[in-house]
Amino acid sequence: MIKAGIIGSTGYAGAYLASILLNHPQAEVVWYGSRSYAGQEYAGIYKNFFRMVDETCMSEDLETLAEEADVIFTATPQGYCAGRMNEDLLKKAKIIDLSADFRLKDRAVYEKWYGIEHKAPGFLERAVYGLCEINREQIRSARLLANPGCYTTCSILTLYPLVKEGLIDPATIIIDAKSGTSGAGRSAKVPNLFCEVNESIKAYGVTTHRHTPEIEEQLSYASGDLSGKAVKLSFTPHLVPMNRGLLATCYASLKDGATAEQIREAYENCYGEERFIRLRGEGDLPETRWVQGSNFVDIGWRIDERTGRIIAIGAIDNLVKGAAGQAVQNMNLMFGLEEQTGLMMPPAFL
Amino acid sequence: MIKAGIIGSTGYAGAYLASILLNHPQAEVVWYGSRSYAGQEYAGIYKNFFRMVDETCMSEDLETLAEEADVIFTATPQGYCAGRMNEDLLKKAKIIDLSADFRLKDRAVYEKWYGIEHKAPGFLERAVYGLCEINREQIRSARLLANPGCYTTCSILTLYPLVKEGLIDPATIIIDAKSGTSGAGRSAKVPNLFCEVNESIKAYGVTTHRHTPEIEEQLSYASGDLSGKAVKLSFTPHLVPMNRGLLATCYASLKDGATAEQIREAYENCYGEERFIRLRGEGDLPETRWVQGSNFVDIGWRIDERTGRIIAIGAIDNLVKGAAGQAVQNMNLMFGLEEQTGLMMPPAFL
Amino acid sequence: MIKAGIIGSTGYAGAYLASILLNHPQAEVVWYGSRSYAGQEYAGIYKNFFRMVDETCMSEDLETLAEEADVIFTATPQGYCAGRMNEDLLKKAKIIDLSADFRLKDRAVYEKWYGIEHKAPGFLERAVYGLCEINREQIRSARLLANPGCYTTCSILTLYPLVKEGLIDPATIIIDAKSGTSGAGRSAKVPNLFCEVNESIKAYGVTTHRHTPEIEEQLSYASGDLSGKAVKLSFTPHLVPMNRGLLATCYASLKDGATAEQIREAYENCYGEERFIRLRGEGDLPETRWVQGSNFVDIGWRIDERTGRIIAIGAIDNLVKGAAGQAVQNMNLMFGLEEQTGLMMPPAFL
Amino acid sequence: MIKAGIIGSTGYAGAYLASILLNHPQAEVVWYGSRSYAGQEYAGIYKNFFRMVDETCMSEDLETLAEEADVIFTATPQGYCAGRMNEDLLKKAKIIDLSADFRLKDRAVYEKWYGIEHKAPGFLERAVYGLCEINREQIRSARLLANPGCYTTCSILTLYPLVKEGLIDPATIIIDAKSGTSGAGRSAKVPNLFCEVNESIKAYGVTTHRHTPEIEEQLSYASGDLSGKAVKLSFTPHLVPMNRGLLATCYASLKDGATAEQIREAYENCYGEERFIRLRGEGDLPETRWVQGSNFVDIGWRIDERTGRIIAIGAIDNLVKGAAGQAVQNMNLMFGLEEQTGLMMPPAFL
Repeated sequence: MIKAGIIGSTGYAGAYLASILLNHPQAEVVWYGSRSYAGQEYAGIYKNFFRMVDETCMSEDLETLAEEADVIFTATPQGYCAGRMNEDLLKKAKIIDLSADFRLKDRAVYEKWYGIEHKAPGFLERAVYGLCEINREQIRSARLLANPGCYTTCSILTLYPLVKEGLIDPATIIIDAKSGTSGAGRSAKVPNLFCEVNESIKAYGVTTHRHTPEIEEQLSYASGDLSGKAVKLSFTPHLVPMNRGLLATCYASLKDGATAEQIREAYENCYGEERFIRLRGEGDLPETRWVQGSNFVDIGWRIDERTGRIIAIGAIDNLVKGAAGQAVQNMNLMFGLEEQTGLMMPPAFL
Repeated sequence: MIKAGIIGSTGYAGAYLASILLNHPQAEVVWYGSRSYAGQEYAGIYKNFFRMVDETCMSEDLETLAEEADVIFTATPQGYCAGRMNEDLLKKAKIIDLSADFRLKDRAVYEKWYGIEHKAPGFLERAVYGLCEINREQIRSARLLANPGCYTTCSILTLYPLVKEGLIDPATIIIDAKSGTSGAGRSAKVPNLFCEVNESIKAYGVTTHRHTPEIEEQLSYASGDLSGKAVKLSFTPHLVPMNRGLLATCYASLKDGATAEQIREAYENCYGEERFIRLRGEGDLPETRWVQGSNFVDIGWRIDERTGRIIAIGAIDNLVKGAAGQAVQNMNLMFGLEEQTGLMMPPAFL
Repeated sequence: MIKAGIIGSTGYAGAYLASILLNHPQAEVVWYGSRSYAGQEYAGIYKNFFRMVDETCMSEDLETLAEEADVIFTATPQGYCAGRMNEDLLKKAKIIDLSADFRLKDRAVYEKWYGIEHKAPGFLERAVYGLCEINREQIRSARLLANPGCYTTCSILTLYPLVKEGLIDPATIIIDAKSGTSGAGRSAKVPNLFCEVNESIKAYGVTTHRHTPEIEEQLSYASGDLSGKAVKLSFTPHLVPMNRGLLATCYASLKDGATAEQIREAYENCYGEERFIRLRGEGDLPETRWVQGSNFVDIGWRIDERTGRIIAIGAIDNLVKGAAGQAVQNMNLMFGLEEQTGLMMPPAFL
Repeated sequence: MIKAGIIGSTGYAGAYLASILLNHPQAEVVWYGSRSYAGQEYAGIYKNFFRMVDETCMSEDLETLAEEADVIFTATPQGYCAGRMNEDLLKKAKIIDLSADFRLKDRAVYEKWYGIEHKAPGFLERAVYGLCEINREQIRSARLLANPGCYTTCSILTLYPLVKEGLIDPATIIIDAKSGTSGAGRSAKVPNLFCEVNESIKAYGVTTHRHTPEIEEQLSYASGDLSGKAVKLSFTPHLVPMNRGLLATCYASLKDGATAEQIREAYENCYGEERFIRLRGEGDLPETRWVQGSNFVDIGWRIDERTGRIIAIGAIDNLVKGAAGQAVQNMNLMFGLEEQTGLMMPPAFL
C-alpha cells in the first residue's frame, strides 16, 4: 500500500485527489495537509467525505510528512514546492508537484511569466514533466514530478501528433480554451462568486496566461527543437459558467500536401494504444460532459478546405486529467503499478 | 457474474444504471434495450461510454431477454412493466422495476393517481417495495421488486424514524421537495429546455404529484397502520436549475413531550448501522452537493422550540439512491451479495 | 427632479437601485456612496454602467449627502443606518433604509434576532414599514422608511389576504422559501463561490433566519393583533443556483368552512387594484422567471381537499420587488409621484 | 404610433421583440403571429406578459397583416420570408426579416450554405443589410431589411475597423465565438434540454456554420472588395451553459508596421460617435454580463507582441443587439425616429 500525503488537500485539486485515492486499491492517504484548516476534521470541510474519511487536517510540515509517506502531492500555490525542495526530502519521498514550479526547464521563463524568483533552480533538470502519454518512460523513474497544468494537458495532447509529424505550421497555432470555474480554485474572491460567474462568459489572461510558455515548450520538443523555444503561439483562456470541464479549440494551418489520411494516422500512431485518450476522429467533436469525472481526453478534428486549416478540439475534466487524475496516473507509473489503477471511473455525463 | 438486462437504457436512469454496473465487480450488462434507438451503438448515444461499451442497442423484447439475463431492470414509462408481466417471465429472471407499476399495493390508488388501468394487479401482492433500509429481509427473496421513486426514497427515509417511534403527529406532515432536472427525464419537451429551466424555480404537481400516495403508504406502515392509509400529508415538488440532487425539507409538529434526545435516538436506532444513510444530526443540515454521484442519503434536522415543530431534511442524488443506485443495492440483496458492492463511489462534491 | 443618494451603491441591491433610477424620468442619482470603492469610478466596478454613469464613488458621509439629496437610500449592513440616525438628518432628507434597522417595532425582538444593540430606538415608532400594497397611506407621509426584506415581501404578500380575512389558521403557517444567490450579497466568502453554489441546493438559517419575526409581526397586524406577536410560524429559506428570483411556498390549514370562492375573493379584494401584484388564481402557479427583472409579485394557489390545506405560492425578483424596485416604489409614494413611475419594465423571462 | 406585426412571436427572438416594443414610446404591436399557438392567449405562453399583453396569437397570414401594420418583423425559419415575398406586400408594409433570407447578396452562396432554394432572388438586390453602424444611410430608406445574425453582428463589428483600415491580414482571421443557449431557439430537441447543455461546453457547426459567409461578405466589403468574396476566414461557434450573451474572440495577424495607436484610432474613427458601441480599449476586455439585456456591443482588444497578432473581443446580448434590439434599431431608422428610441435599457449585469 502506497502511503500518500497531500499538501493543500483543502483546495479543489487536493480534495479531488483525496477522492480518487479513496477508491485506489493500492494507495491510501496518510496526511491531509492544510495551512488554513489544520486541526479541523477533513470531513467537516468537505462534507462529501463524511463517514468516509475520519482524519483531521495536518500542518504543511513537509519534513515530517516525508518520514511517513512514500509520495507527497503538493497541490499548493506557485513557489511553495520550490521553496522547500531539498535533496533529503527527495530521498525520503517521491514528490508530485501540481503547481508550476518544476514544469518549465528555463528558470528565466518561469520567473518572467510567474513574476517570482525560482527558489530551487538546481532541481529543474531532474524534474520530469508528467504528461504520461508523451514522457512515459522518464516518469517511471522520476522522483520529482511536475504535474502539467489543466490547459496545457489538453492543448498539448490535442496538438502533439500534428506538430510531431510536421503536418501543421507551428507559427499559425492559436488555442482558444474554455474552462469550468473549479480551475480558479477555492479562494474567496469577488470575481469567483456565483453571481459574477453565472450567466456570463469572459476571456482572461489574454496574451499573458502562464500556461502559454508551458505549451510552447512541450510543442517545441515535439517539433524536434530541443531548446524548447521554437514554437510561439496564441493562447486565450475563457471562464465558463460550469464547475468542471475544459475544452481547447485549436487552430493551425495545414502544411502543403497534408492529407486527412495523414492526420488520422498521426493521431492513431501517437495515441492508438493510449488508455486515456479517446480519438473521436474527424467530424465527431468532443463535449466536456462526455469526459466529466473521468481521466479521459477526448480528441476530434475537422479540416477546413476553404481556409486550409485544421480545427482540432480536445476535452478533459480539468480536475481529473487536468490535475488529480493525471497526478495519480503519474504515481501509478512511478510506483510500477498499472497506469490505469484506480482511474477507470466512467464519465458521469450529467 | 450476474447477467443484467436494461429495458429503457437510453433514458437518464437507465444510462446511469449502465454506468454503475460498468464498475460493478459481479455484474455485467448483456442487453441495452431501447425502443427509440434499437440498432444504434449505445456509445454513440451516450458518448461518455465511448471505448467503454461496445454494444448496440437492442429491442425491448422482454421474453428473449429473460432467457439471457438473470435480472432485468425496467427503466420504462408507467404501465410498461405491468403490461408485460407474467409468471413465465418471473420464473426465468428477477425483475427490478424502476417505474411505479408495483409500488402501490392498492390497485385503485394506482389507477386514480396514474390515470391508467393496472394490467397486472395479480402481481401486486408478490412485489416487494425496494427500500432496503426498511424492507431488507423481504428484498432478499424478492423476484419482482418495485424500486421506489426519487422523491419517495428521500422523503420516507427522512421521516420514517419519527413516524415509527411516534414522535411526530403524522397529520401535520408537510414535505417541500426540490429536485434537479434529470428527474424530468430525457424527453424533448419545451418545459425541459435549458432556457426554460435555467435561472428559475417553480413548484409543479402541487397537490397531485404521483409520489404522494407512495410516501403516504409507506409512512402509514411505519405508523403501524397495515392498511397503508392512515397518513395523509402535503407533498410539493419543485424544479431546480441543476442536473442532479434532491432535497426534501420535511415539517411536522412534535408530539407533546418528544425530546431532542428521543429524536436523536430514533434516528440512531433505525439507521445507526446503515451503510448508505449518513446522520448529520441536529443542526448540521445536508446539501445535495455532498451526496452527488453517491448512493448516500444525508439526513439532518432542527427542532423549532418556538413552533413545536421539527424540520428534518434529507438529501440524495436522484439518479443514484433515487433510482439506479438503489436498484443495484436491491440487486445486490436479491443475489446474496454484499449490499454495498459496486456502490461505494465517493460523492463528487463539484 | 428628485435628487437621490445611495449609500452602499456597490452592493448588489445598491447597484440595481442605481440601474432603476437611471431609467426613472423624475429622479437622478447624485451620490454613489461606497465604503470600499470611494474614489474609484463607479462604471469601473459595475461595467454595465460604462458610458451610462460617469460618476466616481463617494464616501459614506451621510451629513454632507443630506445637504445635497432629497432622498437617501441606505443599502447597508444591519446597524449602519440606526447608528447614524438623527433628527437633523431626517429634516434635511427622506431616508429609505434597505437594511432591517427600522423594520421591527420591538427593539428587543430586533436585538434578539440580529444580535446587535439598536442604536436609535427612538426612531422606531416613526419609521414606516414600506410594503406599499398594505401601508400605502402611511408611506406617503413617511420621512424614515423601512424597506422590507426580500423573503418578507414575498411571504407577507402571499399570505396577507388569507390571514386578514381569517381563512386560514395562523398557527399552521409554514413558509418554505427559495432564493437566488444575489440575495447573499457581493461579499467574498467561500460559501458564495460559484462552485460551492452551482449544482446544489441547501436550506440555511433553519429556525433562526432574521426575516422570521418581520413576517410574524406583519401577519399579526393583518390578523388584527396590534401587538404584532400573535402569529408564530416556521420559515425556511433555501439557496438556489440561480442569480435572481425568490419563490415562497406557503402552507396553512384552511379554517372550517373556508371555500375556494372566499379565497379567490380575499385575494381580489386585497389586490384587485394593485399594479404590481398579478393574481394568477387557483391552479396557475408562479415561476420566478416570469417576474425576473420586474417589480411584479405573482401569486397563485391550490387547495388540497385531501389535507384541508391551501398551498399559496408567491414569486418575486429579489433585487426588484424584494429590494431596489420596492424602494423606488416607496420613493414614488413619498414624493407624490405615480406609484409605478420608472418601474414598468417587463419581466425579462430569459 | 408605428403599428408593428410580428410573425414568429412565440420564438425567443420574437418574444423579446415583443418585450422591447412594449416599452417603445412610438410603436405598438398589433399582431402577435404564431403558427403553433394561433388562437391562444399570448400571455398564456409567455407568462411574463401576464397583465401587460392581452392579445391572442394570430395566424401567419402576411397578406392580411400587411393591411394592418406599418412594419412586419419576420422572426421565422429560413425560407419563410423569401417564400412569401412579393411587390404588393412591400408596398403596403416595410419588412424587417430576422431570418437569413435576404442577408447574402449571392443567391448561390445562400443555397449552398442553407441547403434550400431561394424563392425570391429578385429581391436580394433591394434588401438592405441592417447593420446600422455600417449601413446607416441605406437603412433609412429601406423597405426590405435583412436583420443580421447574432454571431455576425458581433464578429463583424469587432473586426470591421481593423479590416477597413487595413491593419490586419484578412487571410489570418479566426473567430472563436461562444453563445448562450437562447440562440438555439425554443424548439423541443434533446440537445437543447437543460441536462444536455448544463455543465458542458461544445463547439458545433465547425467549418460549416451558416453565419460564416455572412461575416465574410461584409468584411470583404469593408476591405474594399465589392464582390464580397475576398475574405475567407475560420468561424467556430460554441454553446455555453447560460441563457443569453455572445462573445466573439477574434484573432488576426497585424500587418507590418501596424501600431497600437493606429488600432485605437481605427476603432475611434469608426465607432467614436456610435451610441451602441462601447469601446473598452486595449486591455479592458468585455464580458457578456456587462451587456446583458442591453443593445450595447462592448469591444476590447490586446496586441500580442510575441506573435504579432491582435486579439479583439466583442460581446453582445444575442437576443438584443444580436436580434430583437437591432431589429428595433433598424425600425427606428426606417421610420425616421431617433436611433436609440426605446433601446436605452441599462445592462442587467445579473
